[in-house]
Amino acid sequence: MREVAVIGIGISKFGELWDQSIRDIFAEAALSAMKNANIKKIDALYVGSMSSGLYTMQEHLSSLMTDYIGQRGAAGFRIESACASGGSAMRLAYLEVASGMSDIVLAGGVEKMWDVDDGSAILATASDQEYEAYHGVTFPGLYAMMAKLYMHRYGLTREELAQIPVISHKHAVNNPNAQYPFEITVDTVLKSSLVADPLRLMDCSPITDGAACVILCPLEMAKDFTDKPVKVKAVGAATGTIALHDHKDIIRLDAVRLAAERAYKASGLSPQDIDFVEVHDCFSIAQILVAEELGFFSFGEGGKALAEGQGTYGGKIVINPSGGLKAKGHPVGATGIAQIVEAVIQLRGEAGKRQVNNAKFGMTQNMGGSGGSCVVHILEAL
Amino acid sequence: MREVAVIGIGISKFGELWDQSIRDIFAEAALSAMKNANIKKIDALYVGSMSSGLYTMQEHLSSLMTDYIGQRGAAGFRIESACASGGSAMRLAYLEVASGMSDIVLAGGVEKMWDVDDGSAILATASDQEYEAYHGVTFPGLYAMMAKLYMHRYGLTREELAQIPVISHKHAVNNPNAQYPFEITVDTVLKSSLVADPLRLMDCSPITDGAACVILCPLEMAKDFTDKPVKVKAVGAATGTIALHDHKDIIRLDAVRLAAERAYKASGLSPQDIDFVEVHDCFSIAQILVAEELGFFSFGEGGKALAEGQGTYGGKIVINPSGGLKAKGHPVGATGIAQIVEAVIQLRGEAGKRQVNNAKFGMTQNMGGSGGSCVVHILEAL
Repeated sequence: MREVAVIGIGISKFGELWDQSIRDIFAEAALSAMKNANIKKIDALYVGSMSSGLYTMQEHLSSLMTDYIGQRGAAGFRIESACASGGSAMRLAYLEVASGMSDIVLAGGVEKMWDVDDGSAILATASDQEYEAYHGVTFPGLYAMMAKLYMHRYGLTREELAQIPVISHKHAVNNPNAQYPFEITVDTVLKSSLVADPLRLMDCSPITDGAACVILCPLEMAKDFTDKPVKVKAVGAATGTIALHDHKDIIRLDAVRLAAERAYKASGLSPQDIDFVEVHDCFSIAQILVAEELGFFSFGEGGKALAEGQGTYGGKIVINPSGGLKAKGHPVGATGIAQIVEAVIQLRGEAGKRQVNNAKFGMTQNMGGSGGSCVVHILEAL
Repeated sequence: MREVAVIGIGISKFGELWDQSIRDIFAEAALSAMKNANIKKIDALYVGSMSSGLYTMQEHLSSLMTDYIGQRGAAGFRIESACASGGSAMRLAYLEVASGMSDIVLAGGVEKMWDVDDGSAILATASDQEYEAYHGVTFPGLYAMMAKLYMHRYGLTREELAQIPVISHKHAVNNPNAQYPFEITVDTVLKSSLVADPLRLMDCSPITDGAACVILCPLEMAKDFTDKPVKVKAVGAATGTIALHDHKDIIRLDAVRLAAERAYKASGLSPQDIDFVEVHDCFSIAQILVAEELGFFSFGEGGKALAEGQGTYGGKIVINPSGGLKAKGHPVGATGIAQIVEAVIQLRGEAGKRQVNNAKFGMTQNMGGSGGSCVVHILEAL
């Protein structure tokens, strides 16, 4: 396989984008990424989107987006793996280049979520419809069960759990694209509406419109386009069980562990080598479980460690310098690519006030459902 | 890139599968393909599905299907490109093997379409929602405009156009999985309900539940699993314009021409080398336009040639020996893979009464929308 580099990035504002349609939002990020990479033509486009059909009655984004950004003729594909759609699009775009099939490939993601009023039912299509969603459980309910068990088994307090979103919001303050770039306190979390006990509104990632795109090319061509190529060092992908009740242990995420193992093995790296990680914190509890599965903390110790600040600047590893899904926003199909965008910004040293010092290796972890699928990437500054 | 072979095939009955859910239908085809390939474990799964969200409120098929066929842990991805979802899944599964990322990969497709009553609106999400579907035009209307212009420009009669489905049904008689394995006459077509002038019910592919799967591996490993491996000789993919009004000429399908050009170039073959082709005849007029773009007939001559029997046994090339979308059925996301299944059956010499004699090279052509995307494969008997 050929080595692959990211040579351009683009991202839209994350938030409530009432005056932009799904094509406008994607085009903004895509054209920005192409400009950032100094390219005018792509060979192929991969777009991650979880539910453009249910959210906007528009499937066939492969054709629409390639057409709408002026790239008719290029190969185009839409990739869906629920909330891991963006990461999956990245992995397959990587293969498109690594295999030698194409040279210049756009990997993007988009979701336009604010135009409907049944967003929870749509998101629940990422769970097992026949055995979970149909019976009324939605994702806050599923993650609430995970939180309950974790808190019970390992003695994590409600106040400690509340530190997770507090830190995420602190990070987001320095991210101009974030949906909620302001600080909150533990008190804000504890006094926010109860969604599914023990999870409150401030434990949950929001509904977000947004898009993100990156441009990939063979590493050996990268210097023709940019002074700061970022290498895609390794990819890892895995599935688990779609239904939470089929997990061997509902607070273990086998797909995350497997995807990470594959990425570590392919890169020859271990958790100690990673300088920062963008993780899929769809709920506060998810950040803890994922950080443990990725090998940054021992099982059962992640919650307290993160509450003590081990996942922010000055700690063991910087988690979600972008603000993460909670504070940066979570336009589902775009999230996996937005994580790559953040990793590239950090590895280029362009992150300003949220820069992780001497960042050499960055990881991204994008997850579908309650752990039904996961894609992990490791990127390297050259 | 590594050379890739198909070592196993599986297909469900096509039709109204009221007693099977989407997961049942897919699992039937997937497990059948795994058995056919003599394998028990896959490294990755690619599933094409256009609108599982809108049809069944179930996204995340990447996880669900991998889980449901006993392959937890494997990488899983759902691919969507409207009606070209299956062909797209095949192309990306091909890259998964060709790149060296995985060895044993399942490429499948599925659609469960009969459970809803707004199927036309769902299919219209493959068109330009804001500029076509929203204003009331659905696919029969779009293809009717193409048929009108073709008939006017090239003097094709309504009776000649009716020969296309008549021949498709004749082929389907010998396909045990076909939805409508019976013959019809020109009179049947001309007396069927008018759907969108000049297209009548018998010009239109039906609503179908169904799934199809194939197993891919590196060609050099294929003989370990089967005596009759079929080589994936070449792939070609392209996008066009999603909206029909943006075509330079509404009866030209640039994406089909480009995808075919890429597949011919990669294979070193020309139309004269192809023994049979499975084309995307979503409407009778589509078979004509596609056969011309693929280079089997000159522009404007395909209609009369096909009416005269040049696309059936004894003619210039056998088109849709399976019965095609019209008579075999069109479970949207499964169609592109069902085409591959038919090509493999033919190239193995296992097609019985519908066998194309001395078949060496078979082509498949899978198309999204009114030509917004297209994927072409060329397969070779070894």
